[in-house]
Amino acid sequence: MMVFGAIIFLFLGSVKSFSTESEPCTFNKENLCKPALANAIFTTIAFSLGALTSALSGFLGMKIATYANARTTLEARKSIGKAFVTAFRSGAVMGFLLAANGLLVLYVSINLFKLYYGDDWEGLYESITGYGLGGSSMALFGRVGGGIYTKAADVGADLVGKVERNIPEDDPRNPAVIADNVGDNVGDIAGMGLDLFGSYAESSCAALFVASISSFGSSHDYSAMSYPLIISSMGIVVCLITTLFATNMFEIKKVTEIEPSLKRQLLISTVLMTIGIAFVNFFTLPSEFTIFDFGFKKVVKNWHLFFCVSIGLWAGLVIGYTTEYYTSSAYSPVQDVADSCRTGAATNVIFGLALGYKSVIIPIFSIAASIYVSFSLAAMYGIAVAALGMLSTIATGLAIDAYGPISDNAGGIAEMAGMSHSIRERTDALDAAGNTTAAIGKGFAIGSAALVSLALFGAYVSRAGIKTVDVLAPKVFIGLIVGAMLPYWFSAMTMKSVGSAALKMVEEVRRQFNSIPGLMEGTAKPDYATCVKISTDASLKEMIPPGALVMLTPLIAGTFFGVETLAGVLAGSLVSGVQVAISASNTGGAWDNAKKYIEAGATEHARSLGPKGSDAHKAAVIGDTVGDPLKDTSGPSLNILIKLMAVESLVFAPFFATHGGLLFKLL
Amino acid sequence: MMVFGAIIFLFLGSVKSFSTESEPCTFNKENLCKPALANAIFTTIAFSLGALTSALSGFLGMKIATYANARTTLEARKSIGKAFVTAFRSGAVMGFLLAANGLLVLYVSINLFKLYYGDDWEGLYESITGYGLGGSSMALFGRVGGGIYTKAADVGADLVGKVERNIPEDDPRNPAVIADNVGDNVGDIAGMGLDLFGSYAESSCAALFVASISSFGSSHDYSAMSYPLIISSMGIVVCLITTLFATNMFEIKKVTEIEPSLKRQLLISTVLMTIGIAFVNFFTLPSEFTIFDFGFKKVVKNWHLFFCVSIGLWAGLVIGYTTEYYTSSAYSPVQDVADSCRTGAATNVIFGLALGYKSVIIPIFSIAASIYVSFSLAAMYGIAVAALGMLSTIATGLAIDAYGPISDNAGGIAEMAGMSHSIRERTDALDAAGNTTAAIGKGFAIGSAALVSLALFGAYVSRAGIKTVDVLAPKVFIGLIVGAMLPYWFSAMTMKSVGSAALKMVEEVRRQFNSIPGLMEGTAKPDYATCVKISTDASLKEMIPPGALVMLTPLIAGTFFGVETLAGVLAGSLVSGVQVAISASNTGGAWDNAKKYIEAGATEHARSLGPKGSDAHKAAVIGDTVGDPLKDTSGPSLNILIKLMAVESLVFAPFFATHGGLLFKLL
Repeated sequence: MMVFGAIIFLFLGSVKSFSTESEPCTFNKENLCKPALANAIFTTIAFSLGALTSALSGFLGMKIATYANARTTLEARKSIGKAFVTAFRSGAVMGFLLAANGLLVLYVSINLFKLYYGDDWEGLYESITGYGLGGSSMALFGRVGGGIYTKAADVGADLVGKVERNIPEDDPRNPAVIADNVGDNVGDIAGMGLDLFGSYAESSCAALFVASISSFGSSHDYSAMSYPLIISSMGIVVCLITTLFATNMFEIKKVTEIEPSLKRQLLISTVLMTIGIAFVNFFTLPSEFTIFDFGFKKVVKNWHLFFCVSIGLWAGLVIGYTTEYYTSSAYSPVQDVADSCRTGAATNVIFGLALGYKSVIIPIFSIAASIYVSFSLAAMYGIAVAALGMLSTIATGLAIDAYGPISDNAGGIAEMAGMSHSIRERTDALDAAGNTTAAIGKGFAIGSAALVSLALFGAYVSRAGIKTVDVLAPKVFIGLIVGAMLPYWFSAMTMKSVGSAALKMVEEVRRQFNSIPGLMEGTAKPDYATCVKISTDASLKEMIPPGALVMLTPLIAGTFFGVETLAGVLAGSLVSGVQVAISASNTGGAWDNAKKYIEAGATEHARSLGPKGSDAHKAAVIGDTVGDPLKDTSGPSLNILIKLMAVESLVFAPFFATHGGLLFKLL
Repeated sequence: MMVFGAIIFLFLGSVKSFSTESEPCTFNKENLCKPALANAIFTTIAFSLGALTSALSGFLGMKIATYANARTTLEARKSIGKAFVTAFRSGAVMGFLLAANGLLVLYVSINLFKLYYGDDWEGLYESITGYGLGGSSMALFGRVGGGIYTKAADVGADLVGKVERNIPEDDPRNPAVIADNVGDNVGDIAGMGLDLFGSYAESSCAALFVASISSFGSSHDYSAMSYPLIISSMGIVVCLITTLFATNMFEIKKVTEIEPSLKRQLLISTVLMTIGIAFVNFFTLPSEFTIFDFGFKKVVKNWHLFFCVSIGLWAGLVIGYTTEYYTSSAYSPVQDVADSCRTGAATNVIFGLALGYKSVIIPIFSIAASIYVSFSLAAMYGIAVAALGMLSTIATGLAIDAYGPISDNAGGIAEMAGMSHSIRERTDALDAAGNTTAAIGKGFAIGSAALVSLALFGAYVSRAGIKTVDVLAPKVFIGLIVGAMLPYWFSAMTMKSVGSAALKMVEEVRRQFNSIPGLMEGTAKPDYATCVKISTDASLKEMIPPGALVMLTPLIAGTFFGVETLAGVLAGSLVSGVQVAISASNTGGAWDNAKKYIEAGATEHARSLGPKGSDAHKAAVIGDTVGDPLKDTSGPSLNILIKLMAVESLVFAPFFATHGGLLFKLL
């Protein structure tokens, strides 16, 4: 982070050769703006603040989750309803912490920066974009590193424990079991939290930047300027009220009530937030204003912005519900996949891949619809606030999502503590619902990532001074096709990383089973620490190549090929990456639940495929294992790819606009 | 085809309300052009001719292949070299037939149409584009229908025969064995042939159309105008010479010589063709001319076009060689995949998917490089001739590709005829090399499809009168992201089709094994015809939804959302589809060869994984089965998706430009 901070300072400082003199502003030429050197310094500070806040949020999120794990296990002794409330509340605490923390630091930073910048809002909000970059860079560690960590441990533990040694999941005799539990916290809690935190920081920054060069900025209307922040604050209030519905209004008595209850949370928060948006619009915005639209001024009405934010919010709901349909064993898609296990693992994989591909259709149409409406109504500002709308219920989303890994680990603790079978059954039921909600959370994260990166793309294009990104220009088109390739390159790296790290884990687990006498009988303790160390080392080492790909691509494309090619790269990776991400994460979720469907044997059809250990179940386990890296590593990591490249381009845009395109200049 | 021909006539006729009066030309306004009704009639005729020629080529190709199968088996009794020459020559006959046939009908049509059109070259070459659409529509049957046919039979035969009943491949006791053999001809011979024929027809049409509105057309320079056709003719001559190298100059004595020999063919044809292009350029083109560049005129020099054609040609070679590297068991990628079978099918699938993703990188960079060079030098005409350059060695490419299924079926015939084991070994060796070359052929087909559809896209944009396709316009961006989704939708359909058709086949094969007494002992004959019928019915029925998606998308997008959104859809599906297609086909090829690598046991490493029936081998078989629909159905079918949508848009462009965009007009 320090090295990258230094790069930011050097690149941005060099835009005007480190001059300390004030210059005419880029967008309002009659005003005088602070020197580029000041922007370089403040961007670096904002970057550090973003990274620190993000790291802090991840750290606290994991603290909360670890406490919550054991508490949920204890509550599960009483009833399933109590366990549910504990797990859900813990998730909610984490959600609120993240949303509030991110908002607070951003708000304080803006006000502190203002002390120096005064009336130069262009420079102020240009520097603030560093906050988004910082948040997103940390997310790289959480999603990519965390994803490799958790799946290396999970796949490694399963391949030896479940398949070779035939011992149950979370059995304390398995040396990789602790690494697996730690991984759930690292990958699912910290990874998802940092990812959504990054989205949140970035969409706020993108919206603020576009606003600063629009009429809000030039007329110095501070309350209208803060519209994005107020929307997010309203979101926190709405989510607080929503949480009460799950924890205090309805009581969970049966397992089958969990999934509908979580789905209801999403719906309630969306409906309440729609009213909230109307309030915010009425009180903070003038009835008419102009928005910067790639060199033109676009007149926007108050109620236009209401539609922009709302459509983002509702698109999030549609994506969430679609994801649930494709990954929950309550509906036919997952049941079909489970059924295909009859003819073996191969047909299971084929049907699972096809399901993932198919699950892309509705989310993409709803993203496209929200892009069209918000883009048409309020240009790139519309996209940014649509992203904020989708993220405004982030606290509820995170509560629903974090609930999954918390229940998962609660089950692990019950197993390891040798608690009675009925407790394990309760936590398993919580976990099964958690699988679907985790998929919903991922769908949500991907959808918002798509909108966020489009908003950042728009801000980048504005800041780089590009008027059109014409596909018919060769340098844009090659950017587009290479950009569309990047998600594949990136996925190849992350999937192979999980594969190799898992192989190392398998070797270590096998070694311990073979060399530690009495391990299988439960009389000797395995060496958990070595397995944890393998996951830690692998995740840190293996995240370097994909991390480098993400961080270097904008720098190389911008410096050597120029701002237009980079715009093509961003657009290409966005439109291609979102498909790969959605299909990968839903395929994985569906396989996981198809396996759980066969194991649970709740219906006639499921029982005809089972029980555990049948040929169909074995085929389902193979699908589940293939899905692990897809749904928890390569798929969600793509969010980071598309967002981080976009925000990095935005931060470095002044540099690329001045010094970029070396190669074409030479030719 | 007749229905679609009627639609073409009605849509295009309605552009000027079926008026029979001549009008000022679109691009050279001072000239008088034939009425739109004439264009509608002649486009429909060209469409029918394209479809007929394509169907005839497919039919003759399958005839040749079926004769060649038995001949290759007989020659395999003498030596591996003789068998190789027979299989390769048969492939070459098919390649030449296709290339020559396509060229001949196109040339004759142009000259016949000219009798009516006279000096109205704009209208003439506008109508000729129907030829490309016809060729490509038939390819839909070959690739999608054929792909479903062959894989339903293959997967069905393997799942029961190899996995459940433990009888060898191509065993005559397996009721699905004939369907499998027929499938090789339908999918691999007719499918690949029609696909490349379509590419060839389309790139010629795209080049001719752009030329007709450039200085070649307006100055009525017929020999320069025919440049695309002359390049293809030169390609046939070059391939004739190249074929002699394989059949007469070098003799194959050992199995290991086959793959290098086929690779050498590619290299020789590319080198010779580069010289051929220089000749054609020198004799047919003026030293300087202008090319239509989206409303502007671009001055192009003779040698510029030489670079355009050559870079396409060489990019094809790079793609071919990269594909070989990633799918041949001689190199580390496939060996790594084979090695991952040690820990089971799940790691095999993970590593295979990662390999496919990774194999996209180099082809995309080489496609991007050829796009940049040819686009910069000669606008969309440059892209079209680059595609023709890649396809100029089509006869050699098809020879190499068709050689694979011919050897495969020769092996089947040897097995079924109860010939000695050594003959089967020879044909197996031929087949293994054929697997890699089939992957090369597919890489080649995808690469050329990408260039072709970009050329068609350019022609469409020109004809629809669009000046820029700006990603920053909402209606273009939503087209882009929805377009990028289409390959996933399409793949989901085709993969699921194979899955369900294979399940039906499995049931039938199981039924026969259970109900026909003496079948397993070889005393009773299975009912081959029912299995053939299942494949035939399934392929025809299951190709309707994906076919409808391809055919209707441009019509819906163009009619309701207008030409800009459609441009976005085409660009999106192009940049996304090419990635999915390459990764799917290479993943499948790699799994297939990883399995063959373990079976052959040629190295110490391979033997440590085998023999046939070991756990690692079983894992490899699962990967192979998953790969079957990826590499032979969904992957290559995407070529059709991206090309057919583009050529359809081109043909309907006048209609969309006049009547399109209903929805936005209403709003």
